[in-house]
Amino acid sequence: MFSTEEYVMRNDKTKQKMLEYGVEVLVVSNPSNMCYLTGYNAWSFYVHQAVILFVDEEEPLWIGRGMDARGAELTTWMKNDSIIYYPDEYVQSTIRHPMDFIAQVLNRRGKGRKKIGVEMDAFYYTAKCQERMNYGMPNAEFKDASGLVNWVRVIKTETEISYMRNAAQIVEDAMQKAYDLADIGVRENDVAAAITHTQISGNEEFGGDYTSMVPMMPAGRHTASPHLTWTEERYKEGDIITFEIAGCQHRYHVPMARTMSLGKAPEFVLEVGKVVDEGINETLRHMKPGITAEDVNNIWSDTIARHGYEKKSRIGYSIGMSYPPDWGEHTISFRPDDRSILEPNMTFHLMPGIWFEDFGVSITESIRITEDSVEQFTSFDRKIFEKEIR
Amino acid sequence: MFSTEEYVMRNDKTKQKMLEYGVEVLVVSNPSNMCYLTGYNAWSFYVHQAVILFVDEEEPLWIGRGMDARGAELTTWMKNDSIIYYPDEYVQSTIRHPMDFIAQVLNRRGKGRKKIGVEMDAFYYTAKCQERMNYGMPNAEFKDASGLVNWVRVIKTETEISYMRNAAQIVEDAMQKAYDLADIGVRENDVAAAITHTQISGNEEFGGDYTSMVPMMPAGRHTASPHLTWTEERYKEGDIITFEIAGCQHRYHVPMARTMSLGKAPEFVLEVGKVVDEGINETLRHMKPGITAEDVNNIWSDTIARHGYEKKSRIGYSIGMSYPPDWGEHTISFRPDDRSILEPNMTFHLMPGIWFEDFGVSITESIRITEDSVEQFTSFDRKIFEKEIR
Repeated sequence: MFSTEEYVMRNDKTKQKMLEYGVEVLVVSNPSNMCYLTGYNAWSFYVHQAVILFVDEEEPLWIGRGMDARGAELTTWMKNDSIIYYPDEYVQSTIRHPMDFIAQVLNRRGKGRKKIGVEMDAFYYTAKCQERMNYGMPNAEFKDASGLVNWVRVIKTETEISYMRNAAQIVEDAMQKAYDLADIGVRENDVAAAITHTQISGNEEFGGDYTSMVPMMPAGRHTASPHLTWTEERYKEGDIITFEIAGCQHRYHVPMARTMSLGKAPEFVLEVGKVVDEGINETLRHMKPGITAEDVNNIWSDTIARHGYEKKSRIGYSIGMSYPPDWGEHTISFRPDDRSILEPNMTFHLMPGIWFEDFGVSITESIRITEDSVEQFTSFDRKIFEKEIR
Repeated sequence: MFSTEEYVMRNDKTKQKMLEYGVEVLVVSNPSNMCYLTGYNAWSFYVHQAVILFVDEEEPLWIGRGMDARGAELTTWMKNDSIIYYPDEYVQSTIRHPMDFIAQVLNRRGKGRKKIGVEMDAFYYTAKCQERMNYGMPNAEFKDASGLVNWVRVIKTETEISYMRNAAQIVEDAMQKAYDLADIGVRENDVAAAITHTQISGNEEFGGDYTSMVPMMPAGRHTASPHLTWTEERYKEGDIITFEIAGCQHRYHVPMARTMSLGKAPEFVLEVGKVVDEGINETLRHMKPGITAEDVNNIWSDTIARHGYEKKSRIGYSIGMSYPPDWGEHTISFRPDDRSILEPNMTFHLMPGIWFEDFGVSITESIRITEDSVEQFTSFDRKIFEKEIR
């Protein structure tokens, strides 16, 4: 997907940050970070694996399961020598652990007394992984480097943005499909199936990849709980549905959420919808390089506060490449105390849902920071969509 | 999905195992285990959350993110008092961690000096989680209880098996869809889209849930790497494709893999296919309660060795309820040294793929151990399917 030059540039930037963090070796377990640095792209993150960078060596190592090594050879930019694998007896065993193997490899390469960065809070780097590393490398000094590579990823290149633009087309088509199909008497899972079909099929020009989260589409009183998926229930007249879905190409995501009503929406739902829309407009109008993530949150909070509303959760986060279970990048969040400064070609999901005890309204925009303002990836009507009852 | 009685029974069995393990408190982070014990079902495992059991208290606690608490109230069997949530400022923060909050809750409840089981190698229990628990509960004694709940899950009830039977119907339909659609000139992603549509739409009688792994469908030389997903490439004459997919209902999975050829398959592929089929038949004929997981592996190895083949990876594993990224249960594996004894109503994915440097053949069966032999969940022709070229 990317040129070897782009991968080398990403590795160089990461090594620069390793020097700043004071680590000589970096063990990368987050699949998004592994793919970003090497191109490795497979559904193998349910077994332990890692990409390992050294400040003083050109190529990183990929270490994983034997049956996945060939996939690493096929999808990464490195020489086959840099692909190392452990035998299957290490897989989900109670007597051997893949990190024992990785510690051995590092020891043999003379890294046993080095300062080693590990992604302490990455999804697949378990407590057991660190325990085995401590045991296998008793003289190494481990430092938490959870966000190190994520922060290298935060400003996107032209190619990355082009994939996100394609993902944006996909998510618009998928949301339209949801609007078209959701109706009284239709099962939730049938709408989920159609959304997913559109996400993966893409269009004539390009196909879609799997998204890091499945469609989240709570209906009725479930809309108060944004992360419920779907059931086999049939929609009823008066149901409010919130759809939070994404488009994805080559692992790059553009998420979007919208809220619809089967039949005329109640006045208070429409009102909340208008407040959210006004808040988004006001926030987008002020976003530009130089302001902070906290500023973004404040603009939003001030705008909705004029109408007597507040939102207690963050109103957005950085997006880009990702693997399940999350399409967030785990760097910048729009919330109090996040003083990160916006820069051109950062990309975000502006996610200002408002949830009450019994219902919720979710309307969002994925955006790119430009030289002086903001670009919306999608242009999809933000109003609460009211499906006409036939 | 299940009665309160079934949940209470599951909790009682788990508490019994806690006594055997010597822990008074159990922090459950694995989403499959959380759902098994409480019914909690949402795509929220990308933030830290836990279900906590106490040997001397009836109900477990659910502790998670504020916006997910309502979903826990809606989907679990416990009283609302047992649902506790942390504020959003704990989410993906570098200064606060959800485990700080959980440690506090446990300390306040007088558990600060107890023996506490934690799932050290569960997917979402990161190294950071344990670090924060150690810090927040310095006088507690932590023990690794990674497989504790998984082992409670290993024998299925009638209701669980009925969901797996439904999942079996779905995976048969999805595989048939793959066979029907895959053809020369068709894009891989369009076949993936159709498979996924069938998986989620299900049939008229019941719908499907998302599967814990997306369709894995390497084609051509990619078949040597079983965990590659799909590309936007168009299939070519002579392509060998291996499909590994599952059906899923209410989080219960039945996986299946098959291999197809676009046009006449080469002789050596057909030969490997026959060896795999014979190996499966021979293995199924001998499987019954009382034999060990290692025995199963030996029957398989002996059969294919007669033809000069060997498989270096495990040839199957226990299945049931699961969440991404894996539909394996992480208990029993069919491989040397696994002396677990088969019992009625254990369920497995018998997964004897054979991979070479340049291609692979994967043909599998999901099965249930009966009182005296084995039941196949699916009945789908095991031959290498050769698509006629039009």
